[in-house]
Amino acid sequence: MSTRKTPRGVPRKAACSAIAFQGARGAFSEEATRRLLGQKVEVLPCERFEDVFRSLKEGRAEGAVIPIENTLAGSVHENYDHLQNFELPIVAETHVRIVHNLIARQGVSFSQLKRAFSHPVALNQCLDFFARNPQIERIPFYDTAGSVKMLMEEGLTDAGAIASSVAAEIYGGRILRRSIESDRQNFTRFFLLRKPEYARRYPFQAGANVPWKTSLVFTTRNIPGALFRALSAFALRDLNLTKIESRPLRGKPWEYLFYLDFLGRVDSPNAQNALNHLREIADMLRVLGCYPKGA
Amino acid sequence: MSTRKTPRGVPRKAACSAIAFQGARGAFSEEATRRLLGQKVEVLPCERFEDVFRSLKEGRAEGAVIPIENTLAGSVHENYDHLQNFELPIVAETHVRIVHNLIARQGVSFSQLKRAFSHPVALNQCLDFFARNPQIERIPFYDTAGSVKMLMEEGLTDAGAIASSVAAEIYGGRILRRSIESDRQNFTRFFLLRKPEYARRYPFQAGANVPWKTSLVFTTRNIPGALFRALSAFALRDLNLTKIESRPLRGKPWEYLFYLDFLGRVDSPNAQNALNHLREIADMLRVLGCYPKGA
Repeated sequence: MSTRKTPRGVPRKAACSAIAFQGARGAFSEEATRRLLGQKVEVLPCERFEDVFRSLKEGRAEGAVIPIENTLAGSVHENYDHLQNFELPIVAETHVRIVHNLIARQGVSFSQLKRAFSHPVALNQCLDFFARNPQIERIPFYDTAGSVKMLMEEGLTDAGAIASSVAAEIYGGRILRRSIESDRQNFTRFFLLRKPEYARRYPFQAGANVPWKTSLVFTTRNIPGALFRALSAFALRDLNLTKIESRPLRGKPWEYLFYLDFLGRVDSPNAQNALNHLREIADMLRVLGCYPKGA
Repeated sequence: MSTRKTPRGVPRKAACSAIAFQGARGAFSEEATRRLLGQKVEVLPCERFEDVFRSLKEGRAEGAVIPIENTLAGSVHENYDHLQNFELPIVAETHVRIVHNLIARQGVSFSQLKRAFSHPVALNQCLDFFARNPQIERIPFYDTAGSVKMLMEEGLTDAGAIASSVAAEIYGGRILRRSIESDRQNFTRFFLLRKPEYARRYPFQAGANVPWKTSLVFTTRNIPGALFRALSAFALRDLNLTKIESRPLRGKPWEYLFYLDFLGRVDSPNAQNALNHLREIADMLRVLGCYPKGA
């Protein structure tokens, strides 16, 4: 991509071709990044979500991958806030099943393990495993992938770490037990973001039969039935919703922000009519992106 | 309560009058419990959310307090699942602002601190504090309140813990810095649950001017505009919604579960008409509870 012709004033070669994400190398966000852009993608791990957005905005990264909702834990409101503040469009989505693996150094066997390090959320998602293996103590660590890195660097032979298979691969760990999470219905949805000019020049490619999705945020006036009227913009045009969520606006009782996804391309006449109709009803409306529906 | 007259067949004295919650003593759930039931409430800390529900269902607790949504992290889907599976009614709600305090042993001063323990989520919510105080290293721990307990038990004099003020009080710690979280708009909404027979006998009391809320879950048929039709049941009766959220049903593409809260008592004629109307449209409808709106 960096060698294609670009309009005047836009650098011919991107300063950086990495994809930013939050967490250490091997985090589930890296798994999502590979799923979206291939195994050889260059990555830029960041400490906070805000850093991820800032890296893309300021050109230290060429794209960003962020989690937006999880089947057990719900929507990541913080990232919805950043999507609005940074105005970086969504160009693709994907879903990753959160699989926790017990990982150790090469040559270490399961019977040697006395401790397992990981992020407390991951440890809590493996409680059935720990109930069956009371000889292994749970030890909280800063993040899932980072616990594998630490294990390898410190040379621990009585300890394992719980993380993704990508983390095992990156740090050279050995997977002793696969998929030890209690609930297999644990999926996270991720968005790929680009800079607006990049998204316009190189639209994300999708197969002919893949439906498109459009994501919006809007607020409605403080009147009864406002949401009902807002949804009429879609229902009257047979546009199918795939997500609707209200979020109270803090400090503004009775006012709500809505997240809405519908199936359709934002540039289709039907969607344009729906958005024009919604603008009559909504106080604020912002399109966050239009992208091929993920598998 | 345990000395009141009870119908025949119901034990005159409850086996246990404690309120179950997830986490260690001093967790934010304990703060919510005190806000709902007073400072002297007896508590039963549990390891998992499922244990909290089970304790109430099986009579080891007389009530349960669970987090249901957070302004930064979204809805706790796991607890919505348990609400449906255990059929324990919501009888009250409250909101707790998540305030993180830096806590140390008595006699330890701020300048002595080289490390601060807490749950990684809490540590991440205090990154501005750590940026201003690079001499203090962040150390992940199993939970916020538990890190205070450990500090006191181990007698650490170079370490602090980040937790609620209730945790400082319970474990005898001293608050060195109050409210060190970066984002003050961090609130969690909690529900108080009772057994159905308890909720019927001793309805939660509220002031005359406090509005009531009703919480529902429902699924709609897989047809365009199904949600729009479902919401008409409320809009046509001027019933105000305070929450709507869709959640995809795993393994059933295009089918959704909806969480909905509306302002009104479930036993009012208007609400009964709306629910009867919604039953015509919904495949499944369950009322999770009716309770006074929390402050």
